[in-house]
Amino acid sequence: METIALDDAARALVIIDQTKLPGRAEYLHLKTQREIWDAIKELKVRGAPAIGDAAAMGLYLAACAIDTDDRADFVRRLHDAAAYLNSSRPTAVNLSWALARMERVVAEHGAASVPELRALLRDEAHAIVEEDVNTCRRIGEHALPLVRPGDGLLTHCNAGRLATAKYGTATAVMYLGHAKGYNFKIYTDETRPLLQGARLTAYELSAAGMDVTLLCDNMASALMASGKIQAVFVGCDRVAANGDTANKIGTSGVAILAKHYNIPFYVCAPSSTIDLSTPTGADIEIEQRPPEEVTEMWYSSRMAPKGINVYNPAFDVTDHSLITAFVTEHGVLRAPYAESLRTVHRNIPIHRR
Amino acid sequence: METIALDDAARALVIIDQTKLPGRAEYLHLKTQREIWDAIKELKVRGAPAIGDAAAMGLYLAACAIDTDDRADFVRRLHDAAAYLNSSRPTAVNLSWALARMERVVAEHGAASVPELRALLRDEAHAIVEEDVNTCRRIGEHALPLVRPGDGLLTHCNAGRLATAKYGTATAVMYLGHAKGYNFKIYTDETRPLLQGARLTAYELSAAGMDVTLLCDNMASALMASGKIQAVFVGCDRVAANGDTANKIGTSGVAILAKHYNIPFYVCAPSSTIDLSTPTGADIEIEQRPPEEVTEMWYSSRMAPKGINVYNPAFDVTDHSLITAFVTEHGVLRAPYAESLRTVHRNIPIHRR
Repeated sequence: METIALDDAARALVIIDQTKLPGRAEYLHLKTQREIWDAIKELKVRGAPAIGDAAAMGLYLAACAIDTDDRADFVRRLHDAAAYLNSSRPTAVNLSWALARMERVVAEHGAASVPELRALLRDEAHAIVEEDVNTCRRIGEHALPLVRPGDGLLTHCNAGRLATAKYGTATAVMYLGHAKGYNFKIYTDETRPLLQGARLTAYELSAAGMDVTLLCDNMASALMASGKIQAVFVGCDRVAANGDTANKIGTSGVAILAKHYNIPFYVCAPSSTIDLSTPTGADIEIEQRPPEEVTEMWYSSRMAPKGINVYNPAFDVTDHSLITAFVTEHGVLRAPYAESLRTVHRNIPIHRR
Repeated sequence: METIALDDAARALVIIDQTKLPGRAEYLHLKTQREIWDAIKELKVRGAPAIGDAAAMGLYLAACAIDTDDRADFVRRLHDAAAYLNSSRPTAVNLSWALARMERVVAEHGAASVPELRALLRDEAHAIVEEDVNTCRRIGEHALPLVRPGDGLLTHCNAGRLATAKYGTATAVMYLGHAKGYNFKIYTDETRPLLQGARLTAYELSAAGMDVTLLCDNMASALMASGKIQAVFVGCDRVAANGDTANKIGTSGVAILAKHYNIPFYVCAPSSTIDLSTPTGADIEIEQRPPEEVTEMWYSSRMAPKGINVYNPAFDVTDHSLITAFVTEHGVLRAPYAESLRTVHRNIPIHRR
């Protein structure tokens, strides 16, 4: 099961369609910018790191399709393509981070010809994906000392290998610990409305042979009260400079419960998700999604009265005071986050929408 | 839309099948004890007060079906019928409360013949339902001074008119305020896995003309953080002597969030749900329900991998320290609950399973 790959000969981005899981493992070959934009928008590929990977590869494919040898024309059209891909979803910073990084390669090679730039962009896209794999593995290694064999671990949504190129962020500690025979009891919130926990996390972790239990989001409090959870691990879509963290809707609630029950709450954050240019969580744009995701999607019949108002933000912001630590590829960061986050951030200017 | 009624001529309990809402308003005529037991077990009739009403009427119908004129034989067979009905669901105390009250009528009329006992039981069942209506209305009246016109009110699950004979418990303040033009903004958690908030609360409150917004359970934290909620009102299935409260799974989580965001959290409790013989929440039996409710029910296809473990308790316990006040038909009770709850409890011995 591969989340994302480049088929360079066919000039296609290959993804597993995550909206079809766990029922069907269906691979899509995306060739046009519109197809890639749609796949991100419609969550066929999702998860902050995977979106960054897809956007980088997508921008390389765009570069291949720009039929000019004039550098200035190429750069202008490449920028348009980056801006277009960047408009697909607003909250996860990896999207704009990856696109900015691709464009920086072009800017740094002022003497390169257009064919040379295409090759540089291909290499950079591959580097972004490879780094994603290494980053996740290192996050897992840094997280492992935070847990013990036999622990009950709760996660929310899917920050798993399906959200990245491999290992996942929140799940890296689970994959690495599982390989060491740690025998975790994994619990995954189903994560309404789109059920990424039920469809994706339960799927990939049980496929890997782990002991996984699914619960509805509203059961996390009772589960924590029962003493079965020793730590919570979640991913993130954007970390503000003060440590406030945007992640899948419901994350802030899990963090508040963890604090109430005195359970450590860890945010697994590749440095690419740290956005020092966003001062606090209040400055993070939260994507609102269609009501039908709540009232109709997946259901055999409509499950709410017609015309009902629906509140459906895709993300929420977890206050930094609720976070026990961030686990990054460079190590575990503790409060005060305004200081510790600075030590790992790589200074790459972010695309602004 | 009537939740529950007795068709005495047909010797039938008439209920609206709540598993079919909001798609279809289908009425069922239940005649046998088995049909009534099944309807309670399968949540065709649900909500603590409505279960009590159904059990009382069901026991009256059982009394009609006991073909004997021998009082001792009648009392014994009536007790068997009560024990059977009482075994349908474990958590809501109203079920055993209503059955115990019906049997007490028999015990208190030692000289009555079997036909006289049947008439007394019919009157008692009607009295229980009528008291349910009055209790809910009084709960609403006592709750009204706790809110202001224009307030945003959050509720969880359905403690509405569908869970009672009329008004509901948690919703009584909404119905009464709405009639006074209070113009509340009502928010209802969808309440997984069985979606009573989406299917029932959203349905009955919007049918009554209120401004209702549906959210997924995991969105309550973000909603509270946005400042849109001024108070939370929930029902309850059993209140222990110290104030710990069993209610629909997820309630304890909402209470913890409300405390975190400094929002008052009110439990609407008919005195029939107060069980002084249960010392604390740890002594309340929590019903576990089938995994398929989480993984398959309602869905057009299975939404989780086959064989996955599922955690599916139907209720959780909210610690008394998280409850701002209980609203009962006798008034608003504040901590310390071990004292205040005693003032309203009617001393009716509870059926023990």
